[in-house]
Amino acid sequence: MTKTPTVPPEPDRPLHELLRLPAGEVDLTALDPRGTPGYPGAGKEDAPELTQALAPALSDLQERLYAAGRVGAEGTPSVLVVLQGMDTSGKGGVIRHAIGMVDPQGVQLTAFKAPTEEERGEHYLERVRRALPRPGAIGIFDRSHYEDVLIARVEELVPPEEWERRYEEINAFEAEVIASGTRVVKCFLHISAAEQGERLAERLEKPEKHWKYNPGDIDARLRWSDYQDAYTAALQRCSTQLAPWHVVPADRKWYRNWAVAQLLLETLRSLDLEWPTADFDVEEEVRRLSATR
Amino acid sequence: MTKTPTVPPEPDRPLHELLRLPAGEVDLTALDPRGTPGYPGAGKEDAPELTQALAPALSDLQERLYAAGRVGAEGTPSVLVVLQGMDTSGKGGVIRHAIGMVDPQGVQLTAFKAPTEEERGEHYLERVRRALPRPGAIGIFDRSHYEDVLIARVEELVPPEEWERRYEEINAFEAEVIASGTRVVKCFLHISAAEQGERLAERLEKPEKHWKYNPGDIDARLRWSDYQDAYTAALQRCSTQLAPWHVVPADRKWYRNWAVAQLLLETLRSLDLEWPTADFDVEEEVRRLSATR
Repeated sequence: MTKTPTVPPEPDRPLHELLRLPAGEVDLTALDPRGTPGYPGAGKEDAPELTQALAPALSDLQERLYAAGRVGAEGTPSVLVVLQGMDTSGKGGVIRHAIGMVDPQGVQLTAFKAPTEEERGEHYLERVRRALPRPGAIGIFDRSHYEDVLIARVEELVPPEEWERRYEEINAFEAEVIASGTRVVKCFLHISAAEQGERLAERLEKPEKHWKYNPGDIDARLRWSDYQDAYTAALQRCSTQLAPWHVVPADRKWYRNWAVAQLLLETLRSLDLEWPTADFDVEEEVRRLSATR
Repeated sequence: MTKTPTVPPEPDRPLHELLRLPAGEVDLTALDPRGTPGYPGAGKEDAPELTQALAPALSDLQERLYAAGRVGAEGTPSVLVVLQGMDTSGKGGVIRHAIGMVDPQGVQLTAFKAPTEEERGEHYLERVRRALPRPGAIGIFDRSHYEDVLIARVEELVPPEEWERRYEEINAFEAEVIASGTRVVKCFLHISAAEQGERLAERLEKPEKHWKYNPGDIDARLRWSDYQDAYTAALQRCSTQLAPWHVVPADRKWYRNWAVAQLLLETLRSLDLEWPTADFDVEEEVRRLSATR
């Protein structure tokens, strides 16, 4: 379905290194939301082509991963992409344009909304646990357990001692998820307040975008610096060796989409995926098939 | 991400009319698995382009449907595409190449395998009911409740009086699903025994395709005519005015993928989807937003 693949140019250094949250004190204001680290092209004009050029490799590796899951090969890994960011930062756009390049059969997508009545009655990690990708799958979290230290903290949905405890709980949870064979790729889509303002204005201007607008978006925007503080704490305290945070500059949609696709590709490559070997006698099956033709 | 859209050529008559199961006695041998009804191009060489040309319209209509579901507009419909066919007929290929053109956020994909222990303890339609698409979503069934009158009949998993009763139950179930606002598009991917033989041989020849091969495929192939009889009965008895069966010739993968994408597009068009209207005061929100910039 896609046009003839060109060999995609690569960043000089792996993108996951370039975007990994820098060590030390986190200062989001020092990270440029308009940056384009590692982008191998000229800019917006070649981004659709450069992003699409990742599709064949993504597709091939995803199929290997899926195949391993299908035959139930022991130790089959999975991948979990966690997308977080302020309203309009483009979680949906990334899913449409980057994740949309991958066979939907291998993708397990979960959008975490405000917890339901039932979910509020259980530990906040329970619904997350249920949504973890099965072996061979690529899980995508559109928001995640991080909401439980973001909105929960800013809106004081739980007392401070509760959200305070959660950072360590989340680290322990993620370590457990990783130990069970899941690669966790955490992406913070970093957008500026100015760019958010423009995107919200566009949603209000265009009737076909009204459905994306929610008056609550302004309420959250009015607490911009509280949210930036909460993000800073979450990034600082939950960027671990095994599950580092990546800060994806998100003011430019074309860069953001390319970057998440590239991060996913690098992750899949690092799994060294081989095609599963036959668990049946190939010669015998060739013979059986011949007898039917 | 996709190349500049061209206006896709259309079949002379709606494809759903051309592929609808003909009235009267069903004779699958009279329906050509290598046919290309309604295909507006020359053949294999222009199929990737003509299929991709459907993407912008599919994408636009799917977003309208999704938008209606997101704002919870009353009476928001959903679509359910049911894919059935013998092994290698291309259910997976259709999902990858046709359904893969749609935003994954709007797709609810369910692959029905042999029922689990737990599922065997409940009515066979229960797990199907749980998998129905939510309003605004496009549900895809990779196999479906029809397995309960196909493999269940051929392999005698239940007594004849049980599967015999199911055709009417299925019709009643689908009528109920449709009444609740779901458009049901049933596609039988019609492949020939000869083509299946070639595809199975290819899976055995290529190590990277071994994972797709299952010795059970030959067992089913040995009962080819029993399966064709069971499909004939299912098509005959469950092709209703509201939920007709479509027979998609599937020996040519390029036609099959185009055809299912075109059927989905025609279905989405028939829903007359408008963008949802704002349920908030736009002027007031513009004012609130301005105050933050």
